[in-house]
Amino acid sequence: MPSDAGGGRAVAERTVADLSERDLVARIQERLPSPPPWLVVGIGDDAAVVEPARNRLDVLTVDAIVEGVHFDRRFTPPAAIGHRALAVNLSDLAAMGAAPRLALVSLALPERLPLADFDALIGGLVALAARERVHVVGGNLTRSPGPLVVDITATGTVKRRGVLTRAGARPGDALYVSGTIGAAAAGLLLLRDGLLPADSRLSDDSPLTDADSRLTDDSRLATGYCFPSPRVRLGVLVSRNRAATACMDLSDGLGDAVRQVAEGSGVGAVVDAGTLPIDPAARRVFESRGADAVNAAVGGGDDYELLLAVGPRRRRAFEAAARLSGVPVTRIGTCTPERVVRLRRDAVEAELPRGYQHFR
Amino acid sequence: MPSDAGGGRAVAERTVADLSERDLVARIQERLPSPPPWLVVGIGDDAAVVEPARNRLDVLTVDAIVEGVHFDRRFTPPAAIGHRALAVNLSDLAAMGAAPRLALVSLALPERLPLADFDALIGGLVALAARERVHVVGGNLTRSPGPLVVDITATGTVKRRGVLTRAGARPGDALYVSGTIGAAAAGLLLLRDGLLPADSRLSDDSPLTDADSRLTDDSRLATGYCFPSPRVRLGVLVSRNRAATACMDLSDGLGDAVRQVAEGSGVGAVVDAGTLPIDPAARRVFESRGADAVNAAVGGGDDYELLLAVGPRRRRAFEAAARLSGVPVTRIGTCTPERVVRLRRDAVEAELPRGYQHFR
Repeated sequence: MPSDAGGGRAVAERTVADLSERDLVARIQERLPSPPPWLVVGIGDDAAVVEPARNRLDVLTVDAIVEGVHFDRRFTPPAAIGHRALAVNLSDLAAMGAAPRLALVSLALPERLPLADFDALIGGLVALAARERVHVVGGNLTRSPGPLVVDITATGTVKRRGVLTRAGARPGDALYVSGTIGAAAAGLLLLRDGLLPADSRLSDDSPLTDADSRLTDDSRLATGYCFPSPRVRLGVLVSRNRAATACMDLSDGLGDAVRQVAEGSGVGAVVDAGTLPIDPAARRVFESRGADAVNAAVGGGDDYELLLAVGPRRRRAFEAAARLSGVPVTRIGTCTPERVVRLRRDAVEAELPRGYQHFR
Repeated sequence: MPSDAGGGRAVAERTVADLSERDLVARIQERLPSPPPWLVVGIGDDAAVVEPARNRLDVLTVDAIVEGVHFDRRFTPPAAIGHRALAVNLSDLAAMGAAPRLALVSLALPERLPLADFDALIGGLVALAARERVHVVGGNLTRSPGPLVVDITATGTVKRRGVLTRAGARPGDALYVSGTIGAAAAGLLLLRDGLLPADSRLSDDSPLTDADSRLTDDSRLATGYCFPSPRVRLGVLVSRNRAATACMDLSDGLGDAVRQVAEGSGVGAVVDAGTLPIDPAARRVFESRGADAVNAAVGGGDDYELLLAVGPRRRRAFEAAARLSGVPVTRIGTCTPERVVRLRRDAVEAELPRGYQHFR
């Protein structure tokens, strides 16, 4: 239960500026499960101290989401902000084949942020952490004179021979993508148009998932944008049976991911438009707005799916790992020796649309 | 040398928005030394992969500095922003007794940030990283619609029996502080009053240190505020010979640190005002403004010194470690069984002034 420190007013009326840093940290600690045995020193000292995992490499990633750049508080519920901030990092770990382990949470909080929103943000973050067995071992809180910034560092572990990089794809390898594409971009369009992100349950501590059967198509897209499911289990299983030669997540869109893997591996790629697993509801959203669904889905970001390159002899092993993970995978193309990245569509080849650009 | 990608204009006229994320990352990578043998995958993939250090625990910390909260770009040179952002994290590692190892750098950049300032910020950060043998293994870049935010995660390693926490002090332990106190608070006062932070050399890649003999007293204080020297070697040496029962850094001031160590250890403390190593020039700055030097030095933040508790039988071992580190240490008080924290001054005891509060 949230602590009552920091003033007598109801939580609903208070802002984070009504509480001390220590009281805000206490509100986070109260939500955390009991510490894992490898945690030697947790929240409350100058730094966290952990035992390394035996016979594993450490994998480390950091990703920030910034109000006005990565989310809009007018239509992203606070629980979704916390969930997304952790999810983007878990997606990076999944893309390396790593099992997630711990997170450090650094928050820059506008003084007027309602305390209820702070609690909901932490609730969304902690709920995903619990689901994926990630322990929050430390962090930092500061005021922000501008946007809300949620900056998360996550670490995971992987066996040396199971590391998945962007650099191992070879000509002839098949390219697969997990789940569907375009759903997040379509969900964002709907939210920007004023669709409310499903219902009030989204702002409590047990957010809906994008597979929730209670949702309409539009609500499912909006909810999927807000609460992406990083493909942690798929990444770990593919790493374990060494079924992929390269892997990357789709944070900046499929077009970007194919380019990066091709460049990292020194190969080219041809993607077959007809095979792309574009979310059917997303396709309707794009087409109802006069947009080309393939371009929108390939160029749109925020689909936290995985792109994987798989050698000719490992396809069955790969598909077995995917089945075990419960996430559908679709073959969308092939790596080529010519170092160009193309989209084949109705027998015509053209440049693959680019993904999201953070700068420029 | 900085890359020329991103437009033909001179560096002096360009802003970070003129470059792509990839080009900005390339500008950072160009400054980094060759990767250490334990780095399996560095910058450029979804996450970094590292080999854990053998027979060591991992220590992890994150700290953000935010424009308008922790620094003012009007008088903090860009190189100092980069230096400080890393220094505050290295200070946290030092306070745990850990030898620093790697850093992840997450930057939220205002679009109008001059590219020359970006380069100088990275220069200040990389120079300190090289000096302290910290390798930058990854990070994140994003736009900021508001302040410049530099959020750094640093990790280090420590032997299990050498971990220094806030929790081990016992009644009768001596309290020591490294270096001097008050210098950073006085330096900040001078900068706010319009003193320029030393000279133009501050914004190049080889910043002055606070001990530089070319500086006047005022310039030394201002420079010390801008370029703090975290007590990495002292922390490591004290950890190695197990000479302290508790340790914490003075980021929020000595008053705050004594309280936190006392609370963490379940003891009290009495600090003797007459022994406090207040920087003589800082004392003059405080007194010339009519402030009480003891209160100002004890309450002022940003002195990245260490507070250490040392058991009666370990004082010689502790002082030997301090001598070896080259950092002077001063005994300032004693831990007590009564759980109150007092300042003794001219035979009168009063509450110890509090340190800096981030919220409220």
